[in-house]
Amino acid sequence: MVGVDLGGTKILAAVFDEKHRVLSREKKPTRPELGPQTVIGRVADCVHDALAAAALPHTAISAVGVGVPGMIDTRGGVVHVAPNLHWRDVPFSKWLGKQLDLPVAVVNDVEAGTMAVQHFGAGRGLQDFICMFIGTGIGGGLVLHGEQYRGAGGMGGEIGHMVVVAYFGPKCGCGNYGCLEAVASRTAIVRRIVKAMDDGQKTVVRSLCDGDTSRIRSRILAEAYRQDDKLVREIVNDASHYIGIGAANLINVLNPQAVILGGGLIEALGNRMLPRIKKAAFAHTIAASDERVNILDSGLGDDAGILGGALAARRLAKR
Amino acid sequence: MVGVDLGGTKILAAVFDEKHRVLSREKKPTRPELGPQTVIGRVADCVHDALAAAALPHTAISAVGVGVPGMIDTRGGVVHVAPNLHWRDVPFSKWLGKQLDLPVAVVNDVEAGTMAVQHFGAGRGLQDFICMFIGTGIGGGLVLHGEQYRGAGGMGGEIGHMVVVAYFGPKCGCGNYGCLEAVASRTAIVRRIVKAMDDGQKTVVRSLCDGDTSRIRSRILAEAYRQDDKLVREIVNDASHYIGIGAANLINVLNPQAVILGGGLIEALGNRMLPRIKKAAFAHTIAASDERVNILDSGLGDDAGILGGALAARRLAKR
Repeated sequence: MVGVDLGGTKILAAVFDEKHRVLSREKKPTRPELGPQTVIGRVADCVHDALAAAALPHTAISAVGVGVPGMIDTRGGVVHVAPNLHWRDVPFSKWLGKQLDLPVAVVNDVEAGTMAVQHFGAGRGLQDFICMFIGTGIGGGLVLHGEQYRGAGGMGGEIGHMVVVAYFGPKCGCGNYGCLEAVASRTAIVRRIVKAMDDGQKTVVRSLCDGDTSRIRSRILAEAYRQDDKLVREIVNDASHYIGIGAANLINVLNPQAVILGGGLIEALGNRMLPRIKKAAFAHTIAASDERVNILDSGLGDDAGILGGALAARRLAKR
Repeated sequence: MVGVDLGGTKILAAVFDEKHRVLSREKKPTRPELGPQTVIGRVADCVHDALAAAALPHTAISAVGVGVPGMIDTRGGVVHVAPNLHWRDVPFSKWLGKQLDLPVAVVNDVEAGTMAVQHFGAGRGLQDFICMFIGTGIGGGLVLHGEQYRGAGGMGGEIGHMVVVAYFGPKCGCGNYGCLEAVASRTAIVRRIVKAMDDGQKTVVRSLCDGDTSRIRSRILAEAYRQDDKLVREIVNDASHYIGIGAANLINVLNPQAVILGGGLIEALGNRMLPRIKKAAFAHTIAASDERVNILDSGLGDDAGILGGALAARRLAKR
């Protein structure tokens, strides 16, 4: 099985054996500005390279599964809208399938990550849990009664657009004010840091990014935090507090067994953020429902996407 | 079947025929300060009076169902905690059953109301919807895949304690700041009006409540709104805006077919509030998920509780 995580910044592909162990992995920049056909060509190259690295012919593979950040028609294999890639109605499974001569499953990236958490991560054995993926944006997956729940129209899980600071919050990419994503995503954190730098505040980020603020990613934030940078600590801690409030809102409404955190920001800074997230979450959960709710790391790091892709591939191959 | 809605202020009981049509109804003040045994005696009196009004012997009735605002062990018939009644671990079904010599089902009031909306109200025929009951507090019921969902521990639906104005919001009864209930419940509205009155602001509420602010209920708010009272309009409109934001948060997370509004405040002011609730909700819903989501009145008014009680009674009688 091959699992692919197609993000706005990078493409990750991995070859898995029958027990979902990684045999090989490859990585390429996405370069969405080159358009969907070129990006899909890059995905195909990445898959070919991963197969070569595993020394496997592509006849040894039954299907490829790809997680894409957008609205997907999984049955038809079409990416309806993927804002980070600037795609609209791209016949993904057909195009990539032709290039690879293999069946291709395409699923929403958060749905893929949630499947991975359920089967291989901290969600194993749980019937009711919520995933919060914190990175460029904030996405959520709900597993209720053992099944992933995406709502009547399949559009649920948009936990990043819960309003948590009505009126007073900053503007979100969606146009509203005070969404969780606008105060707690990596994008929101970087925006605050860049503004503080523009205002002349001292921070090690300036040298860590060589003065190029477009290079500030989770890893740089983690390094600045490790170096005890006052500005970064304050802003990241604020974000943790808001993520905790978001978790509390979900706990109050859905009373799950667990809230499971993943995504790039958590991978890089989870050990710093988790204690603060938990503290804020339990402070904002009404007493009755915080009992026995676990708040924890997915345990999958950056592999949630490729593992979810492999699961989607397996599901397709079994059909 | 007899359905009872036991609230912190009043007890409503009604006798229903097999088709859930009301044969008679009775009402009594709850007077929770008299303690659980006396209150349960008052519930029994209310049921007896309703049966007498319907000219039915109590042998004609197979069961009584009661909705109570609190944490209920439905199987054991015990009210674990009911803050508005100041109850803890009251063996409700046993005590009321003895007095009435009938089987008694006890369920959470919001769960009962949601059942009623699903079977008799705006939720008929829907598989996925959310009820928001707005009154003294704000409670929520989730129907997902045609079944009421209460979470892993049965404590879900606490939508009133979603934080929507982190840091900047007023204090809630739960101890936190900025909960939906703290800015949009009838209690929150009345608190703001009383404060404005104390500050000397002009309002017809002063005469409508004969100077006794403890008498301000939804009906007085509705009358003040009808009389174009500037203060009441402003405060009620603000609350509508926040309820819309709360609805949007739920729509973004759960993508239901509908959000259905009920409770005392909506019964009294629904026609004034609904257009503003919808406007705010759709403004805060990300584009993808607001399509085909209906936001509407339950259509049951104050009968949701007694109808839900009757459904619980029917379920018990069938066991």
